[in-house]
Amino acid sequence: MALPTSVKLFEMAPRDGLQNEPGDMVPTATKMALIERLAKAGLAHIEAASFVSPKWVPQMGDATEVMTGIDRRPGVVYSALTPNLKGLENALSAGVEEVAVFGAASETFSQKNINCSIAESLARFAPLLERANDAGVRVRGYVSCVLGCPYEGEIAPHKVAEVAKALYEMGCYEISLGDTIGVGTPLAAKRMIEATRQQVPIECLAAHFHDTYGMALANLYAVLEEGVSVIDASTAGLGGCPYAKGASGNVATEDVLYLLAGLGIDTGVDLQAVIDTGYWITGELGRQPGSRVALAKGRVSA
Amino acid sequence: MALPTSVKLFEMAPRDGLQNEPGDMVPTATKMALIERLAKAGLAHIEAASFVSPKWVPQMGDATEVMTGIDRRPGVVYSALTPNLKGLENALSAGVEEVAVFGAASETFSQKNINCSIAESLARFAPLLERANDAGVRVRGYVSCVLGCPYEGEIAPHKVAEVAKALYEMGCYEISLGDTIGVGTPLAAKRMIEATRQQVPIECLAAHFHDTYGMALANLYAVLEEGVSVIDASTAGLGGCPYAKGASGNVATEDVLYLLAGLGIDTGVDLQAVIDTGYWITGELGRQPGSRVALAKGRVSA
Repeated sequence: MALPTSVKLFEMAPRDGLQNEPGDMVPTATKMALIERLAKAGLAHIEAASFVSPKWVPQMGDATEVMTGIDRRPGVVYSALTPNLKGLENALSAGVEEVAVFGAASETFSQKNINCSIAESLARFAPLLERANDAGVRVRGYVSCVLGCPYEGEIAPHKVAEVAKALYEMGCYEISLGDTIGVGTPLAAKRMIEATRQQVPIECLAAHFHDTYGMALANLYAVLEEGVSVIDASTAGLGGCPYAKGASGNVATEDVLYLLAGLGIDTGVDLQAVIDTGYWITGELGRQPGSRVALAKGRVSA
Repeated sequence: MALPTSVKLFEMAPRDGLQNEPGDMVPTATKMALIERLAKAGLAHIEAASFVSPKWVPQMGDATEVMTGIDRRPGVVYSALTPNLKGLENALSAGVEEVAVFGAASETFSQKNINCSIAESLARFAPLLERANDAGVRVRGYVSCVLGCPYEGEIAPHKVAEVAKALYEMGCYEISLGDTIGVGTPLAAKRMIEATRQQVPIECLAAHFHDTYGMALANLYAVLEEGVSVIDASTAGLGGCPYAKGASGNVATEDVLYLLAGLGIDTGVDLQAVIDTGYWITGELGRQPGSRVALAKGRVSA
């Protein structure tokens, strides 16, 4: 199958990235500056915050300040995670134009992560999707553990397809398929996409792969061959899943951009600007970027 | 194209890995223990030493001691790099059963790395190959810079194919194609293999990819799709090329094994034993393994 000619990057660093930062909360001004720099680099889809109870995720307690405070760039979508109706109402009050809900392809992971079965989680999303739809706000659906679960091991592709289909039929415009613990390999990723595209149009599927085992780019190449044209990534590889062993999580935006450029696939994103932003934000956090490309190419400006 | 059902791993850590270690020379006993552990883990092709002038590569000054001192495991091939006839004679005296010569696909790299043109380097290999052939010793040929050169940038696939063909016709039984600076991406890797397989049978081509930009596994997956069935890798990602910017070099054997296992490709190698060996040798060198899989899975034994 031919590779796509262009790919939409969905940037995760401000939410999925910083959410999992240990230690003190990242200052609100730093988050806002990160979002603004990423948008300026050409990233047109940025998950900017999470409207979740600060009791559970204190790092995201300033979601309203971030979403109302950022300097918005025309053509850029700034979305937010909204795990429940209360979160959605807060997001709507903050003027958020796109939100996201988070489900799982693994029953055990669903129980341990969001304290309910997959079916219960889908039932809870129904009124949220209805309310978002009434407000003219698009909803993105995440499915976690699509290539493996820390409790159940391998996950059958048809299970992923079922959950993706349910979210799509409930009104999610795009389904992001997450290899939450990064255990997948290319053929498994291909099979998962092949099963899921039977239920959801391929252009509505996003690959959200973690690099815990170093497989993310190989898996992305494999699903690009299947026609996937939306990729989630996090600048400097920020964040990840606290359930995964090993240090690394999200695939780095820089590495994805380098791969795509090499494949002749257009993204509209300035790689060097993302590299520089990655050096800046990891400098703020007191470490090096978690991107091989960033380390190999180095920064150009502050 | 179908993926191969089995892949031959060619282990690089004792030579290509330790050769590039900064600081004090690794003790001969440590090198020997590394080679013996790798063989015990199931790696049946190990580049164990380099018979090069100790003036140029002091780290390899104990090649004879290593090659004559190791406990040889039946069925395992312990090879050595021999850049010239003198090196070959020393290797033959040490009982080496397979040797390797090192050429480049880039004129400028050839000049800077081995002080002669590509044509001159090939001419120098001719008497070496003749002598090795007389002694019943197989010769492997390396081609560096197959996906890019630090001086010339992109390298045309036909240039790689020409050098590979010359080495093959001179009597090299296998040609290892090196992305020395790790800049390649999957389609470029595919095109390079497509051009080269016109000149050399695919089963005689090996992929020797560096992970400097994090692309090695994606590139390996792409060339496995082309039918490549020999892969060079280095346990714990040891070593690399001092000409490449960035910290990392050789793709880690652990990461390649994890990829291949996920693809259902047989290698006969015990991944956990390689992980444990990687932790042991990097412990001796005072650092962590340069393998994502090793970091994610952790060690089991010392």
